[in-house]
Amino acid sequence: MVNIKVAQTAGFCFGVRIAVDMAKKAGEQLGHAYTNGPIIHNKQVVSYLESIGIKELKDYSQLKPGETVIIRSHGVPPETERQLKSMNINVLDATCPFVKKVHDKVRQLVEEGYFVVIIGEEGHPEVIGTLGHLKEVNGQGVVVENFEDLIKKVPKRNKIGVVAQTTQSEDFFREAVGYLAENTEELKVFNTICDATSVRQEEVKKLAPTVDVMIIIGGKHSGNTQRLAQISKALNPNTYHIETAEELQKEWFEGKDNVGISAGASTPDWIINQVVEKIKQLKGVTA
Amino acid sequence: MVNIKVAQTAGFCFGVRIAVDMAKKAGEQLGHAYTNGPIIHNKQVVSYLESIGIKELKDYSQLKPGETVIIRSHGVPPETERQLKSMNINVLDATCPFVKKVHDKVRQLVEEGYFVVIIGEEGHPEVIGTLGHLKEVNGQGVVVENFEDLIKKVPKRNKIGVVAQTTQSEDFFREAVGYLAENTEELKVFNTICDATSVRQEEVKKLAPTVDVMIIIGGKHSGNTQRLAQISKALNPNTYHIETAEELQKEWFEGKDNVGISAGASTPDWIINQVVEKIKQLKGVTA
Ligand code: F3S
Ligand code: F3S
Repeated sequence: MVNIKVAQTAGFCFGVRIAVDMAKKAGEQLGHAYTNGPIIHNKQVVSYLESIGIKELKDYSQLKPGETVIIRSHGVPPETERQLKSMNINVLDATCPFVKKVHDKVRQLVEEGYFVVIIGEEGHPEVIGTLGHLKEVNGQGVVVENFEDLIKKVPKRNKIGVVAQTTQSEDFFREAVGYLAENTEELKVFNTICDATSVRQEEVKKLAPTVDVMIIIGGKHSGNTQRLAQISKALNPNTYHIETAEELQKEWFEGKDNVGISAGASTPDWIINQVVEKIKQLKGVTA
Repeated sequence: MVNIKVAQTAGFCFGVRIAVDMAKKAGEQLGHAYTNGPIIHNKQVVSYLESIGIKELKDYSQLKPGETVIIRSHGVPPETERQLKSMNINVLDATCPFVKKVHDKVRQLVEEGYFVVIIGEEGHPEVIGTLGHLKEVNGQGVVVENFEDLIKKVPKRNKIGVVAQTTQSEDFFREAVGYLAENTEELKVFNTICDATSVRQEEVKKLAPTVDVMIIIGGKHSGNTQRLAQISKALNPNTYHIETAEELQKEWFEGKDNVGISAGASTPDWIINQVVEKIKQLKGVTA
């Protein structure tokens, strides 16, 4: 007997799921499309997508009218989207809704008269997209990444509005907001940090102590998967971090009937399903 | 020869100046009026005001129609003002404009749909007034004084608005705002901390190194005066903290022609002027 519980938040976040699904559909239906940059950091997914005709766009000049470009979760500046459309490119927009919210909030802050501070990484694709929206509504603003940036880049203004890159760390966000509130009269903050990662971690915290064995699936070098395994191990010493089903070992499950599973942000469902099936097999369960 | 420079920000802040002037005028013109609580913490000022008929109101039931009540800088709940008026009391409102701004911002936040967090001291007269305004517009909110309050008293809300007691320390303000931004979706902060104290200190920082002697006037037990003397001494060892002109000593000024003066928040101009005159006398200058 084996009782396997897969965390609901295992694997892809909401936004990446949308983008990968869209790429799969485009490949299956059109047989050929580009993504504007890597859509996900997972070799198996990328090579599957390549096998159905989805390639990363390296150079815009290689595009021909009528071709399809999938905008990945990070989003793009509105300028880029317009350019593609003016070239008669078929644009499939997989910008994550949470990233779109950052764009909307930046526009709202500009409309309400705020100088905009984007807490995030200068040069990150998401931030480049957000700055494009700021620019389009003739807003003024800066990107701050650390305390030095706050001091050096933020001018004295009476009304400051804040958004964050969706993957911004809470620690610097908190510090930056505190500093800005102290140095302006009116501060409006939209906490646009996405909670996909923290919610996934919370679920592992709840699941790990209730099972006999925890399996965490994801790249050995993936930071978010490592962290997930670390949290799980602290609450359940029988935690194993694997990349694929092949690594599972029969003895991990001997005398252990309750198995919990979670997976890092770049792990597709099919790999999770393979792990589930393999565990059943090792436990001698026939489907 | 002596060259005396009195700091522009020496003594009363803007709000206390308005209230004391109003009390003086009321005493001179009416010969009788109340203040709702002590108007300032300075014995000489209080006894002067008493001498012209200005008393502290101890019990509202002692009031008779037609009498005058001066509302001090801290302000009151609107309810209190209405009650006084319904009793046919002549109300003179010396609420500091910066405190009125806190009231206005609380009302604005409620109108815009925010749950209000007042960063300040529960039970402080200013905060009681501010809570009165919150209540009057049917707003919801809490007062937070320390980190424990933040955790215990602030409920989970999507829109949180913040104001601060005018005399709130910047340190906890910064910490609280950071924490709140992390725990809500939309945060709007009005930094209503009054800069009277920090501006007074800044001026001393500039003045002290440019003179031969610095005189700091104010109560020996007044925290803000002690701090002023401490800052001055760090930048100019010839700093003396006095309460009145009588304490000045001739030898402090021997061979020293440039004298700087500042004073704590409760020191009236007339005491500052007495100090100036006494120094001139000690230096043998005839007016
Ligand atoms: S891409 Fe994923 S991490 Fe959040 S912002 Fe969108 S759900
Ligand atoms: S009373 Fe004074 S300290 Fe500031 S808030 Fe008003 S000027």
